[in-house]
Amino acid sequence: MSLNSINTPADLKKKPREALSALAGELRQFILDSVSKTGGHLSSNLGTVELAVAIHYVFDTPHDRVVWDVGHQSYPHKILTGRREQMSSLRQLDGLSGFPRRAESEYDAFGTGHSSTSISAAMGMARAFQTKGEKHVAVAVIGDSAMTGGMAFEAMNNAGVYEDLPLVVILNDNDMSISSAVGALNRHLARLLSGSIYSATKKGIDSVLSIAPPLREFAKRLEDHAKGMVSPSTIFQEFGFNYFGPIDGHDLDALIPMLQNVRRLAIEGRGPQFLHVVTRKGQGYEMAEADPILYHGPSKFNPEEGVKKATTPSKQTFTQVFGEWLCDMAQADPLLVGITPAMSEGSGLVEFQKRFPQRYYDVGIAEQHAVTFAAGLACEGMKPVVAIYSTFLQRAYDQLIHDVAIQDLPVLFALDRAGLVGADGATHAGAYDIAFLRCIPNMLVMTPADEAECRDLLTTAFEQPHPTAVRYPRGSGVGATPSKELQSLPLGKGEIRRHSTATAGKRLAILAFGTLLYPALEVGESTNSTVVNMRFVKPLDIELLKTLALDHDAFVSVEDGVIAGGAGSACLEALNALGINKPFLQLGLPDKFIEHGDYKLLMSACGLDVAGISQSIRQRFPQL
Amino acid sequence: MSLNSINTPADLKKKPREALSALAGELRQFILDSVSKTGGHLSSNLGTVELAVAIHYVFDTPHDRVVWDVGHQSYPHKILTGRREQMSSLRQLDGLSGFPRRAESEYDAFGTGHSSTSISAAMGMARAFQTKGEKHVAVAVIGDSAMTGGMAFEAMNNAGVYEDLPLVVILNDNDMSISSAVGALNRHLARLLSGSIYSATKKGIDSVLSIAPPLREFAKRLEDHAKGMVSPSTIFQEFGFNYFGPIDGHDLDALIPMLQNVRRLAIEGRGPQFLHVVTRKGQGYEMAEADPILYHGPSKFNPEEGVKKATTPSKQTFTQVFGEWLCDMAQADPLLVGITPAMSEGSGLVEFQKRFPQRYYDVGIAEQHAVTFAAGLACEGMKPVVAIYSTFLQRAYDQLIHDVAIQDLPVLFALDRAGLVGADGATHAGAYDIAFLRCIPNMLVMTPADEAECRDLLTTAFEQPHPTAVRYPRGSGVGATPSKELQSLPLGKGEIRRHSTATAGKRLAILAFGTLLYPALEVGESTNSTVVNMRFVKPLDIELLKTLALDHDAFVSVEDGVIAGGAGSACLEALNALGINKPFLQLGLPDKFIEHGDYKLLMSACGLDVAGISQSIRQRFPQL
Repeated sequence: MSLNSINTPADLKKKPREALSALAGELRQFILDSVSKTGGHLSSNLGTVELAVAIHYVFDTPHDRVVWDVGHQSYPHKILTGRREQMSSLRQLDGLSGFPRRAESEYDAFGTGHSSTSISAAMGMARAFQTKGEKHVAVAVIGDSAMTGGMAFEAMNNAGVYEDLPLVVILNDNDMSISSAVGALNRHLARLLSGSIYSATKKGIDSVLSIAPPLREFAKRLEDHAKGMVSPSTIFQEFGFNYFGPIDGHDLDALIPMLQNVRRLAIEGRGPQFLHVVTRKGQGYEMAEADPILYHGPSKFNPEEGVKKATTPSKQTFTQVFGEWLCDMAQADPLLVGITPAMSEGSGLVEFQKRFPQRYYDVGIAEQHAVTFAAGLACEGMKPVVAIYSTFLQRAYDQLIHDVAIQDLPVLFALDRAGLVGADGATHAGAYDIAFLRCIPNMLVMTPADEAECRDLLTTAFEQPHPTAVRYPRGSGVGATPSKELQSLPLGKGEIRRHSTATAGKRLAILAFGTLLYPALEVGESTNSTVVNMRFVKPLDIELLKTLALDHDAFVSVEDGVIAGGAGSACLEALNALGINKPFLQLGLPDKFIEHGDYKLLMSACGLDVAGISQSIRQRFPQL
Repeated sequence: MSLNSINTPADLKKKPREALSALAGELRQFILDSVSKTGGHLSSNLGTVELAVAIHYVFDTPHDRVVWDVGHQSYPHKILTGRREQMSSLRQLDGLSGFPRRAESEYDAFGTGHSSTSISAAMGMARAFQTKGEKHVAVAVIGDSAMTGGMAFEAMNNAGVYEDLPLVVILNDNDMSISSAVGALNRHLARLLSGSIYSATKKGIDSVLSIAPPLREFAKRLEDHAKGMVSPSTIFQEFGFNYFGPIDGHDLDALIPMLQNVRRLAIEGRGPQFLHVVTRKGQGYEMAEADPILYHGPSKFNPEEGVKKATTPSKQTFTQVFGEWLCDMAQADPLLVGITPAMSEGSGLVEFQKRFPQRYYDVGIAEQHAVTFAAGLACEGMKPVVAIYSTFLQRAYDQLIHDVAIQDLPVLFALDRAGLVGADGATHAGAYDIAFLRCIPNMLVMTPADEAECRDLLTTAFEQPHPTAVRYPRGSGVGATPSKELQSLPLGKGEIRRHSTATAGKRLAILAFGTLLYPALEVGESTNSTVVNMRFVKPLDIELLKTLALDHDAFVSVEDGVIAGGAGSACLEALNALGINKPFLQLGLPDKFIEHGDYKLLMSACGLDVAGISQSIRQRFPQL
């Protein structure tokens, strides 16, 4: 196999151009084989095979920097830059990350995971090159959805003023369906794709190439050609970029000369360049082309047979519990509206969208707008539910404070993927939400222990005339069947789930937040401790803490968020405010970023399974 | 005075149109008189006089909603909506807020303060009207600078897909200087203003009006007129908005019919409307027109004489200390770059910009981009200093976590306006930064006690190969003269500033963070307590805490951030982790939003002055 001979981009550059198509074919097959064995992102990576080949063929990587926006499309890049054999360890503990990571390779110029960061980062690199007098180019590869994120626009707006910036933005436009609901930008892109624009561009390149004029003249003419073809003007030109495209991102004969062109223009000080490339998600694997969403991030599967939809229903996930609750509550309350920043599937809104299309909002990758839009709706008496991953709420922190909390508006944040998330790693961990939410006045923060309680706390939160957050982890919990009713729980009240029968002086109370209640209950058995399901981080059940303090000698808090400022700290603060000083052990996530890997292994490594919790307690309280 | 007869917009609507110009003149004079007595925002409010008159004349407020982006231009609106007489209490404790506040008036449809939120909020209201079948219009009034904020684009992108949305966006374009550094969008606006576009629009309106055709026909023709005049197409049209303008925002004869037109189009289901209005900051007051920045937010002054620049230098502010440090460090280290999101004056970067223009970046109102741009620079070995207000860093929280902290990049955040800020109120308070920063791995957080230490901690932070934040308050501290040198302090080490000589069993240690060290020292005298200048929230001086615990019986933490998750909690967590349980009193900001008012009065109300700290200690530890 030719692919086996590619261990660095230098190996790739030695290949004759006519060999690249075959190589791309091998690479595509390798990705399909590899991802079907490990699980991981598939559709997006099948779409960027030729782009990765062309980029590393044309650009002087790693000295030219390539930033892959979001980064889940970077597998071809990883394979071409010395990590082919490690692909079997993808997304596993100590294995390759599913995203670019600076620590992993010098070819990973910038770590990504969240969307829309690439232009800002690449612009920083480009300005650094200029300041230091280095002749390199920075490249941002960004999808059409990521372009709707506000910070991509902030970066475009700022980059466009530097007339000699060695920056290339490659728009990887793979939204062939052009759903009109996604946003005006997509409509703009659709207009660019319509008519004869694409074929005209290709023809333009071919004819110019066949003449082979002096380079500068060639560039000039190519530039004029491409510009002339887009009429009257693209948004990207308005932003001060030199716009080329759209071109076929699977056609190396179009890609390579175009990339050579934009690289040269960028390095010659002709300013920021914008190349619009059209690719297809799942390209080359029929089943993925037909259903790119199913093949977006599959688990292991047989490539011959394709991904099988589960026949026997597996345990209900928290996401599904939320999705059902949302439909039931929407049925009961016509003022409910559901909002997602481009995470309809991941957040469990598919059914809601079908049943209540008029009250469903997918605002695109636009977390900031999602939250303030919700605030505007709440001002008029609507009851917005923002379904958002914990990690993505970080994008709308100011909007949560400034637009929702200060005005004390009843917006419910349904925070999925709270705590560690496993294979996606540090960028996607929902580890900080308890700390960053509970310090905000007016916010109420709830941590359901299982599926049944999740539903009830969603109802509880929805009834409050205040901003609320209900946080729950990825996947499923112990499997507690939710009620069919819409019933709420007493606000700010925890429940004692097990009473210690130890003698006075030896009584321990374990304060559990969220799903760690269940390992805590097991530990409670083995240590004869009281175990409390705290349920609410805010308002905290201070009365309960006070009562517990009367006949307990020490406390342990257990949570799946960071210890620093977390729920345990809330208990500590409350006890101290009551003048109660008892030994207190805080268990939770440590003060370091946790890499990707199997969720259970990671939680175990953090000491947050039964064995770990027991051991920490024995270590700290040997006398109990 | 005619203005005295206007207590609600209904009074305004009764006026004949030809009386409005004179009324606007009175209103402008009233604002000048009023603000010159109270201090407050001036230039922006002189610029929106006619806009406010026309909006309330045309729109059905308060049923139509008007959202004033940023909101510091809302004084004319406040005066016209029943708050004329309260203007003398502006920005004072229990007085009128300097920003729209829902709690203040039904005419304040949405509270603002931070930039770029208005379109999202108004869109939420507009969708609520549609859902509930109410025939109202939501209006966002947004400045050209605020339009560069990413979330404004997110909102435009999303709003443009609703073809019947009753939303009007009024772009208040007052950047007459069109600084090319600010961004590509401004260049786009400049192109719209160039040539004969403006006069052509006006002529178009006049001629149409003189014919007075049936309304629908009129609207159609006006629309076509306006559209045809902007060639080939504006960014706003690309976003799916109906674009009108630019028109003179001080000409009521242009404004009123145009607003009537866009309101009707919006309410008739013709989709989102975009009106481009050109105004001048400081309009009608010559001295403010000549120097709108000086008159942006002056203190009290004599309108005859104008704002006087201070002749005797007042005490150096923390902002100035930072500005000088930045220049000195830039001189010493050619890799330093300074970044501000549109806060050059406020953050003290004016001198740096002059002396090091190549290393100065004003990225516009674009906090997210600012931080990730800094991360990109840091990847290439540059040493970025992001000068940002604490409250605005909330806008870039995810970028700080995802792009800076996870990659452990050496970006220094110089956080101005930490703690309470006084007259600007709750929206601008820097109360949460300690809590939301210290929970993030790799972050180092420093709280200088005075000006001299601020400089030294900036140097200390700059030397670290990690992300760092140095937070300091608005205004000046005790006046400790900074060194001329660039000297650092030992990382993670506090200092004991006073030793208690109380007998064993009665020894208290006060742990002070930031400028509250000085009141703490006074309290230390009166209570014979040990007083520690902690300096670092992270890394916390755990050794020092351990040592103090040996011969102290109780602790008090003092900080000017929220108690929940704050620096005191960090101490509590550390002591508990050491197995030390001593009475611990946490003093800091309470769990509620603190309104505007004099800084000292507010701190006193929060119990964070000498009297308050003493009282809290006596109450909690009567035996000491």
